[in-house]
Amino acid sequence: MDKNILGIDWGTSNRRAYLIDEHGACLAEHEDGQGMLAVGGRERFGASLAGLLATMGVGAEVPVIMSGMVGSASGWQEVPYLDSAVPLQRLPAHLVPVADADWAGRCRIVPGYCYRSGAAVDVMRGEETQLLGAVALGHRDGWLVLPGTHSKWVLLRDGLIQAMSTYMTGELFAMLSAGGTLSSMMGGDASDAEGYAIGLSQAGRNEPLSNTLFRVRAGVVSRSAPAAQAPAVVSGLLIGAEFSAAARALEQAGGAARITVIGSPALAARYAVAAAHFGLQCEVLDPHRVYCTAISQFINQA
Amino acid sequence: MDKNILGIDWGTSNRRAYLIDEHGACLAEHEDGQGMLAVGGRERFGASLAGLLATMGVGAEVPVIMSGMVGSASGWQEVPYLDSAVPLQRLPAHLVPVADADWAGRCRIVPGYCYRSGAAVDVMRGEETQLLGAVALGHRDGWLVLPGTHSKWVLLRDGLIQAMSTYMTGELFAMLSAGGTLSSMMGGDASDAEGYAIGLSQAGRNEPLSNTLFRVRAGVVSRSAPAAQAPAVVSGLLIGAEFSAAARALEQAGGAARITVIGSPALAARYAVAAAHFGLQCEVLDPHRVYCTAISQFINQA
Repeated sequence: MDKNILGIDWGTSNRRAYLIDEHGACLAEHEDGQGMLAVGGRERFGASLAGLLATMGVGAEVPVIMSGMVGSASGWQEVPYLDSAVPLQRLPAHLVPVADADWAGRCRIVPGYCYRSGAAVDVMRGEETQLLGAVALGHRDGWLVLPGTHSKWVLLRDGLIQAMSTYMTGELFAMLSAGGTLSSMMGGDASDAEGYAIGLSQAGRNEPLSNTLFRVRAGVVSRSAPAAQAPAVVSGLLIGAEFSAAARALEQAGGAARITVIGSPALAARYAVAAAHFGLQCEVLDPHRVYCTAISQFINQA
Repeated sequence: MDKNILGIDWGTSNRRAYLIDEHGACLAEHEDGQGMLAVGGRERFGASLAGLLATMGVGAEVPVIMSGMVGSASGWQEVPYLDSAVPLQRLPAHLVPVADADWAGRCRIVPGYCYRSGAAVDVMRGEETQLLGAVALGHRDGWLVLPGTHSKWVLLRDGLIQAMSTYMTGELFAMLSAGGTLSSMMGGDASDAEGYAIGLSQAGRNEPLSNTLFRVRAGVVSRSAPAAQAPAVVSGLLIGAEFSAAARALEQAGGAARITVIGSPALAARYAVAAAHFGLQCEVLDPHRVYCTAISQFINQA
């Protein structure tokens, strides 16, 4: 019998499932909006998973590995964070079986990581699985960047997490678009190249976002800047804030001026532009390939 | 007949009206929720003002001076911003009569200011009237701080605006409380002294708010910090961002390490704590007194 495994990236709003063979090849894929919030309560995760398996035609013999918010306090079962002293390659030894008796023998949850540096704390749930995939693909050192609602910048050394910073980039962009002072000017095209470059340049001056975001509005109401560019400027300010902070960290650490972005083509392209702006080399990894590679690492443990 | 004047601070959400005598004494005061958004359209401001005058029993002979969003593109009538080269003391010469024929002889709008420094633009509408009051009270030099939804930091030299920075402090706090990742932990007491001090300290390290705000969540979900302190930490991060940026500007300008805050007692007290944290002297002016003083400056022009 083939050694297959089902990996589920079960996030807050969405879930993605990949049926993987032992070589990391993806045999089937499914994505839907049944994220943690849509499932609607801890006791309903089992039924939700059963529905997914039926939809995908995945048999009862296939083990299931889940990552992401499914393991949070509001998910199926809270799984404690690993300390960042645990190397990513050791993740397969730290999977936590689902306690639910119907699923205990078959389903495991990947723990997230907690990183502490002095009083500063950062956490991830889901990204650790991507990082394991990146490590398995040979990216064991340097800055890995996972853009999104909560963009993660993770510094690896030989597969160990050396530093971790999360930026609420996507969430703040969505909030500012949905309501408040800037929202009336956020309807345009956020990918406008000139506006994005303006935002990146302003971000490089390292002023507080609470100030630079207001200035986008001030520019429009004083007719100094076109309203149509506002979303791209805001995007540049938020993504630029990540790079500006990282550029300082890179300078302090004296590391190589390069990053590896794990992101969808559209988002990765935007980060590549920012990287060039801040003088960083940028390599892009496809998140699906990275995820499937990660899940294949779990086959012998599952 | 007494020379009285009605001043209306007509903002986005609220409006405050003060009947002032020629010495700046407040004879009557009224506050309601009939801000720009509640009025519901340009053509309805006249009726809204008539209602206010009736409520306050203000006669037809009393001139009316309005400041704030009433003069914005979404207000009663858009009044162009003054250039910051115009001294605050000259504001009375720049009042703009309401064009509406029913009110033209009687009502004027105070123009806001636009400040440009290189590519950076900032604007104010309403705060200029407070600043005029402060100048009339002898505060012609140094940093004046007007905390609120959009906190303003304004550097004056002999009553001239030398620099201006707006921070979306109150708006971001409200947004983060209303929804998203942090909202579930924003129900506590934002005035918790220890949490506030933690936020101020973190703000002093000058990292992006998109990162430091996420860390508040990371601290709670990793059980490193009490959820009850989260609102105070967020408040400290946002207000601290203002001080951190201003402290750098003060250092560059070599100015006196002191600020004058025009704010309600609760908000001013919070800014005074932040000022002490950042090594700044802090004087507090009562905003009602300042506003009434400003309006009295308009009596001979109205």
